[in-house]
Amino acid sequence: MIKVAVVVASRANYARIKSVLFALRQQARVHLQLIVGASALLHRFGNAVEVIEKDGFVPAAKVHFLIEGETPTTMAKSTGLAIIELATLFENLRPDVVVTVADRFETLATAVAASYMNIPVAHTQGGEVTGSIDESVRHAITKLAHIHFPATEIARQRLLLMGEDPRWVFLTGCPAIDLILLTDLEQSPQEVVRRYGGTGAALDLRQPYLLVLQHPVTTEYPRGLEQIQATLRALDILRMPTIMLWPNADAGSDEIAKGIRQFREHKNPNYIHFYRNFSPEDFLVLMRHAACMIGNSSSAIREGAFLGTPAVNIGSRQQARERGRNVVDVDYDTEQIVSAVRRQVAMGRYPPDYLYGDGHAGERIAAILARLQPGEIPVQKVLYYPQFWEKRYRQSA
Amino acid sequence: MIKVAVVVASRANYARIKSVLFALRQQARVHLQLIVGASALLHRFGNAVEVIEKDGFVPAAKVHFLIEGETPTTMAKSTGLAIIELATLFENLRPDVVVTVADRFETLATAVAASYMNIPVAHTQGGEVTGSIDESVRHAITKLAHIHFPATEIARQRLLLMGEDPRWVFLTGCPAIDLILLTDLEQSPQEVVRRYGGTGAALDLRQPYLLVLQHPVTTEYPRGLEQIQATLRALDILRMPTIMLWPNADAGSDEIAKGIRQFREHKNPNYIHFYRNFSPEDFLVLMRHAACMIGNSSSAIREGAFLGTPAVNIGSRQQARERGRNVVDVDYDTEQIVSAVRRQVAMGRYPPDYLYGDGHAGERIAAILARLQPGEIPVQKVLYYPQFWEKRYRQSA
Amino acid sequence: MIKVAVVVASRANYARIKSVLFALRQQARVHLQLIVGASALLHRFGNAVEVIEKDGFVPAAKVHFLIEGETPTTMAKSTGLAIIELATLFENLRPDVVVTVADRFETLATAVAASYMNIPVAHTQGGEVTGSIDESVRHAITKLAHIHFPATEIARQRLLLMGEDPRWVFLTGCPAIDLILLTDLEQSPQEVVRRYGGTGAALDLRQPYLLVLQHPVTTEYPRGLEQIQATLRALDILRMPTIMLWPNADAGSDEIAKGIRQFREHKNPNYIHFYRNFSPEDFLVLMRHAACMIGNSSSAIREGAFLGTPAVNIGSRQQARERGRNVVDVDYDTEQIVSAVRRQVAMGRYPPDYLYGDGHAGERIAAILARLQPGEIPVQKVLYYPQFWEKRYRQSA
Amino acid sequence: MIKVAVVVASRANYARIKSVLFALRQQARVHLQLIVGASALLHRFGNAVEVIEKDGFVPAAKVHFLIEGETPTTMAKSTGLAIIELATLFENLRPDVVVTVADRFETLATAVAASYMNIPVAHTQGGEVTGSIDESVRHAITKLAHIHFPATEIARQRLLLMGEDPRWVFLTGCPAIDLILLTDLEQSPQEVVRRYGGTGAALDLRQPYLLVLQHPVTTEYPRGLEQIQATLRALDILRMPTIMLWPNADAGSDEIAKGIRQFREHKNPNYIHFYRNFSPEDFLVLMRHAACMIGNSSSAIREGAFLGTPAVNIGSRQQARERGRNVVDVDYDTEQIVSAVRRQVAMGRYPPDYLYGDGHAGERIAAILARLQPGEIPVQKVLYYPQFWEKRYRQSA
Repeated sequence: MIKVAVVVASRANYARIKSVLFALRQQARVHLQLIVGASALLHRFGNAVEVIEKDGFVPAAKVHFLIEGETPTTMAKSTGLAIIELATLFENLRPDVVVTVADRFETLATAVAASYMNIPVAHTQGGEVTGSIDESVRHAITKLAHIHFPATEIARQRLLLMGEDPRWVFLTGCPAIDLILLTDLEQSPQEVVRRYGGTGAALDLRQPYLLVLQHPVTTEYPRGLEQIQATLRALDILRMPTIMLWPNADAGSDEIAKGIRQFREHKNPNYIHFYRNFSPEDFLVLMRHAACMIGNSSSAIREGAFLGTPAVNIGSRQQARERGRNVVDVDYDTEQIVSAVRRQVAMGRYPPDYLYGDGHAGERIAAILARLQPGEIPVQKVLYYPQFWEKRYRQSA
Repeated sequence: MIKVAVVVASRANYARIKSVLFALRQQARVHLQLIVGASALLHRFGNAVEVIEKDGFVPAAKVHFLIEGETPTTMAKSTGLAIIELATLFENLRPDVVVTVADRFETLATAVAASYMNIPVAHTQGGEVTGSIDESVRHAITKLAHIHFPATEIARQRLLLMGEDPRWVFLTGCPAIDLILLTDLEQSPQEVVRRYGGTGAALDLRQPYLLVLQHPVTTEYPRGLEQIQATLRALDILRMPTIMLWPNADAGSDEIAKGIRQFREHKNPNYIHFYRNFSPEDFLVLMRHAACMIGNSSSAIREGAFLGTPAVNIGSRQQARERGRNVVDVDYDTEQIVSAVRRQVAMGRYPPDYLYGDGHAGERIAAILARLQPGEIPVQKVLYYPQFWEKRYRQSA
Repeated sequence: MIKVAVVVASRANYARIKSVLFALRQQARVHLQLIVGASALLHRFGNAVEVIEKDGFVPAAKVHFLIEGETPTTMAKSTGLAIIELATLFENLRPDVVVTVADRFETLATAVAASYMNIPVAHTQGGEVTGSIDESVRHAITKLAHIHFPATEIARQRLLLMGEDPRWVFLTGCPAIDLILLTDLEQSPQEVVRRYGGTGAALDLRQPYLLVLQHPVTTEYPRGLEQIQATLRALDILRMPTIMLWPNADAGSDEIAKGIRQFREHKNPNYIHFYRNFSPEDFLVLMRHAACMIGNSSSAIREGAFLGTPAVNIGSRQQARERGRNVVDVDYDTEQIVSAVRRQVAMGRYPPDYLYGDGHAGERIAAILARLQPGEIPVQKVLYYPQFWEKRYRQSA
Repeated sequence: MIKVAVVVASRANYARIKSVLFALRQQARVHLQLIVGASALLHRFGNAVEVIEKDGFVPAAKVHFLIEGETPTTMAKSTGLAIIELATLFENLRPDVVVTVADRFETLATAVAASYMNIPVAHTQGGEVTGSIDESVRHAITKLAHIHFPATEIARQRLLLMGEDPRWVFLTGCPAIDLILLTDLEQSPQEVVRRYGGTGAALDLRQPYLLVLQHPVTTEYPRGLEQIQATLRALDILRMPTIMLWPNADAGSDEIAKGIRQFREHKNPNYIHFYRNFSPEDFLVLMRHAACMIGNSSSAIREGAFLGTPAVNIGSRQQARERGRNVVDVDYDTEQIVSAVRRQVAMGRYPPDYLYGDGHAGERIAAILARLQPGEIPVQKVLYYPQFWEKRYRQSA
C-alpha cells in the first residue's frame, strides 16, 4: 500500500486533477487521502466540495485557509495559513507522497509543507511558462518537488534544464485534457446551462455564442478593473449571446467582480448570462460549442487546443505559454478584442491538436504513483547538473 | 530613496548579512528596514537581537514565528507562520525591495510573502548546492527571487542554467566573508571566550584546540542523536581542548542537544566547554586559531577557505558544496573523524583561498541596491531560456 | 503620556467607538494608536478604512485576519489569526492600554492578546445581554478586561454581579449614541442615499420608508436563509420604499446574502434599494426619518431609543437586551412582521429615551483614559466577591 | 452515541483529566476523541504523549501550536494558533461536546474554538480563584462554557454568582484528586525516581526530603529570575535532599529555567536532583512521602489537602485559592521560606482534608457526559440573573 494525499483547494484544480483521482481510485495498492480546502469549500467560489462528493470521493479532511481580501497581501497570508494547516493534516494522515497541482497558492503551500516534512511531492503542470505570480510559483514548486509530470515535451525539457533529475521526470500529458474523452460533448449547451442558476439574460445558445472567463493578473494588481472593462466594452459591441463566469479567488478578483457588477448595473446587458461555476465536464461542453472563447483562462489554450475552440487570449496572464493555432493574442484593448473575436468566429472550429496531451495522463500518473514503494523516492534532492560534479573540489591556486 | 527591508531571524543569518547591513547604512539613498524575528529573539538560541542592537541597528519590527518542537512538522508550520507575519509587516512597512539570506525557513517565508505581494526579492547565496532541505529551499527561493547575489562563479552559472535573467544576476562574493577583513583576528581566543559564560570545563586555549559545530540534517531526521554521538565519541578519543556550540533551531536540533546533554552527564568531559553563541567576529577569531574545525557548519567551508582553517566536515549536510583544500570529508563514523582530525591538526593552517569572496561583497550588494529605482525591477519573472522563445506558437501538424 | 491602542475591525465597531476616538484625539496626554483590520479593510464590507482616514485618523497599522467562509469554523479561525497578528502589533506598538469594542470576534481577540501580554484592556458595552455567540463572547471579554465602560445602569450592575472590581467600572453611556448629537439629522434622506451607489429600485424617500438590516444569528447557523426569507416575504407584502443593507461578516452572512440575491433575482422588487454601507452619520439620518426599522440590528434598540424610531425586532439576536418603548419584538414570521410594521408605522415617532446614554460617553471615556498613569491599572485581576475573602483558609473538620 | 473530544496539551493537564478519560473509556455510549498537542508532544516538557499512549489512549489527532519564546507575546500567539488548529480538528472530528481543563492557554483556545463553532464546552476547575493570568482566563472560559464541573462548593457558588445556569453546574470534586485513590502510595520514593533520568546529585530519599516546583507568574513577568533565586537561596540554606522539577511552558519559564541553570553551575549543589517530568502517579508518591513541598504549584494545595503533605506556598500564583491547613504562605523571601519549611517539616503530615474532592470526580463527570443527548445542551447561553428578567422592557420616563 502507498498512501497518496492530494490537495484540492479550488474548482479549477479539481478539474485539473480529477482524472488522476479517478485513476488512483482504481489502483488497489493506493490509499487515496483527499484534502479539500479553501475556495473549494466556499459557495462564493462554486462549492467544489459538493461536486467532489457527488463524484464519490470522501474527503479525508476539509480545511479553511483562505484569508479574505483577494489582495496580494491576503494571498501571501493564505499561503502561510495553508502551510500551517496542511502540516497538521500531513502529520496526522502520514501520506507516502503528496500530489500538488499546477501553480496556485495552495499548490505552493502543499509543496512547502510536504517537503519540510520529508514527504515526497509529485507535481503536475511543471515546466510550463505563463505570466502572473503563477510563473514564479510554478518553478519554485518544481524546485521543491520530487516527481514531475509535465504536460508537454517542451515543459519536460525546461524541467531538465532547471536541474531536475531525469529519472523522476515523466512526460504524461495534462490530466485536464483527459476529461474531454470522458465527457459527452454532444450534449446541448442549452441543456447544460439549464442545470445552473446564474443571473442575467435568457440566451439562445443555438446561436453562435461567446464564452468569457477573465482572471486577475496578480503581478498587474490593481489594474483588474480597467482590464475587465476593456473586455466588457468589447462584449457590448459584439452583442452575441455570452456566457460569462466570475473570476476565481486570487489577488484582484474583487476588482474584476466589481467591474462586472458595475457593467451589469449600468448597461443591464440583455445578451449576457453570468455563472459562478460549472462542473468541469459541463464547461467542456460549453467550450466545445462556443463560437469563441474570450479572456485569459488557461483552458482556452490547453483544452482549447484539443477541442479546436477558437479563442481570443487577452493580456499577459498566459504569456509565453505554448499554444496551438486556435489561439489569437490581443492586448487589453477593446478594438483588438472585437476584431479578433470577429475573425475567430468567422474561422470556425480548428482541427484537434494534442499539444497538451492525448487524454490518458491520469492513468499514466496513477500507474507511476501506484508502482512506488514508500520510501523509494529520495527526499534529498540534488541539483542535476553533472557538468559541475567533477569540479566539486576546486583547485586553489 | 529606496526602502530596503532585510529579515534576520537567526544568529547564523545575521553573520551572513551583517556587512550588507553596514554598507546599506552608509548609503544615503537607502532607508533600511530591519525585521528581527524567530530564534534571533530567543535566549535559547543566543539572543542575536541584542548583538544587532549593540551594532547600532534599531529594528523596524520584532516578530515571533518559531513554533516549538524542532521537528519537520514544526519547521513547516514556522514557515507558514512567518509568511503570515511578514506579509503584515511588509504591508505596513511597504519596502521597495526585500533582502533574504541563504536558505533557512524564514528565507523561504520572506521570499514567498514578498513575491506574492509584488515586492522584488534580492537573494544572497543562491546557486550553491548542499544537502538537507536547505538544498530544495535554496533553489525554490531562487525561482521566487528577482535579483541574485551569488557568492561563487559556479553558483552564478547554476543560476543562469536554472533560467534566471542574466541582467539580474551579480557575482559579488559572499557577505559572510567580509567580516574577516573587519575583524581583529589576532585577539587571543582565551580573551574571546572569557566574554561568554557557557558551561563545562576550563580550557587552555594556548594549546591546539578544536572547534565543533554540528547541526541537524533535516532530510535525515530523526537520526540526529546517533549522528552527534559519533562526533562526541571522537571527541572523547581526541581529548583536546574543545569549544563546542549548541545547534541552531532546525528540525532535529532537539535530538542533537539531547545527545550533547547525555554525553555531558555521563562522561562529564573535562576537555569541553559548551557555548550557546558567539558574535560573528568572535567566532572568526576562534576559527582563525583553531587547530581544526569539526562538524557540518558551512562556515568551515566558506570562511574556512579564506582563513585556511583545517576542517573535518561530517556527513551530508554540505554535500556537493564547493570547497577549498582546507576541508576533509568524512562519514558519521567515529574512526574516520578521529583520523581525519589528527591529519588536519598535523597539517596546520592552509594558505588563503578566495573561493567565496574577497571580503567586499557587502559593499557591492549595497551599491547595487542603492542604485535601484523603486519599480525598476520587473516583478513579473520570465524563465530565461531564449531557445524556446521562438517556438512559442507551435506548428500543429 | 499614555499610549492608547484601539482596534477597529468592522464598519459597525467604528461607529461604536468613533466619539471615543475623536475625544482621545483632543487629549494632549494621549498618544492614540489606531489599528484597522479585517472587514474594515475590505470593499465587500464597506471599506471602513476609507471613512476612518477621511475622518483624519492615520492608522498605526493595517492588518488582514478575516478567514473567508463566514461559517462558525472560519469565525473561530479568524479569532485565532487576529490574536496572532494583534500580539505582534502590540509587541511593536507597546500600548499602555488597549480599548476593545462590544462583542465581535476581533473584540475577543484583542482582549485575549492584550491580557496575556499584561496590557490592561478597556471594554465598552460590557454587561449587556443579547442572543447569538456575541452573548458568551461579551461576558468572556468582561472577565479578561480591566476597565469597564458600561452603557446602562443595569449593565453596570451585571458587571458587578459577575465579580468585576467596582473601582474600575464606570457608567458612561454608550459612545454609539454620541454621534447623534454630532450629526445634522435634518438632512434629507434622499440627499444622503444619493452619495451611495447601491443597486435596485429608485426610491422616493419623501414617502414613509422602511430601513432593513438583518444579521445572521451565529448560534442558529445555518438557518440564516429561512430567517431572511420571512423578512423578505414581509417586505413583498408591505411594498413600501425600502432601504436594505447587506449583513456584516459573521458566520451565516453568506446565507443571508444568498437569500437577498435570490429574492432580488426572482422578484426584481421595484420598491427596494440595496446598499453595502453608510457612514455612521448618514445611517443615523436614515434612522431618524424612517417610518420603521426592521431586522435585528442593535442600532434599532440603542440609537433607536434616543431617536424614537419605531422598530420591529425579529428573532433572538437581541434577546433580553434592554430596550425602550420604540421596539416591538416578533418571530421569524412573515405575518407577525407585517402586522407589527403596520402598527409601528401608524404609531409614528416615539419620544426620546436616554436609556443607552446622553450623547457624551466618548468624552467621559477619553477623560478617564487620559487620567491614567501607565502601570496604574493592576493587570492582576481578582474576582470581586468579598463575601468569600474571609473564608480563604477553610476550617477543615 | 455521543462524541466527546478532550484536548490535552500539557503534562499538567493530563494529570488533571486522566480519571475522566479513564471513566469515559468505560462508558459504552461515549466515543472519545483525544487531541494531544503543544507541550504534551515535546521532549523538553516531558513528552506527555508517550505516557498517554502507554495508558492505552490512541490520540485522534496530534497538533503542534506552541510558539517558542515563553514570553507573554508568544503565549498570546500560541493561544491564537491553537484556536486555528483546533477549529480545523473540530470541523473534521465533529464532536458533540468538548471537555477543556482548568485555565491554561490551550484551555481558553479550546473554549473559544468550540463555542464559536456551536459545540458545547464542558469545563473543569471553574470558579476557583488564583493569581497569574490564569485567573482572568479561567473566568473567561467559564463565560464561554456550557457545562461546569467545579471542584469545591465555594467554586460552585462563584459560578452561580457569575451568572451561570444552575441546571448546568455540577459539583463533582476535582478529577486531579481521583488519581490518589488509584495509586499505590506506599511505593518507595527511591524506586520511583530511579525510573527517571534527571540530572544532579544522588539523593537518599529515606531521609526527609523536599519537593520543589515553582512556575512563572505571568502577570509578574519578567520577575521570574529573582523569584526563583529567593527559593534557590533557601534550598542552599536548608540543604535537605531535594527533588526539583523544571517549570512548565508559560511566559517566564525561560527565566525560571535560567535561574536554576545558573544556580546549578555556580553552586553545583550536592543535595538537589533535577527532573523534567514525572507521571502523575509517581508525582503523587513523591508528594505523599515528602517532608515538605515548596513552590507555587496548585498540586500542593489541591492534592496536598487530601494527602496532608506539608507545603510552603510562595508568592501570588495561588493567591486566594481555597486551601486546607497543610499550606503555609510566604513571600518571595529566602528567610520566610526557610523558616516556614523548618516549621512544616517539624509538623509532619496533616490529616486528610476532602476540600477538593473525594476521589470520584472522574466517574461523576463521565456519567453526566454519557447521559447527554447530542444537541441537548443549549449552545445559546443566557446570563442567569433572573432579577433582571422582569425589567426587560424598561419604563421610560
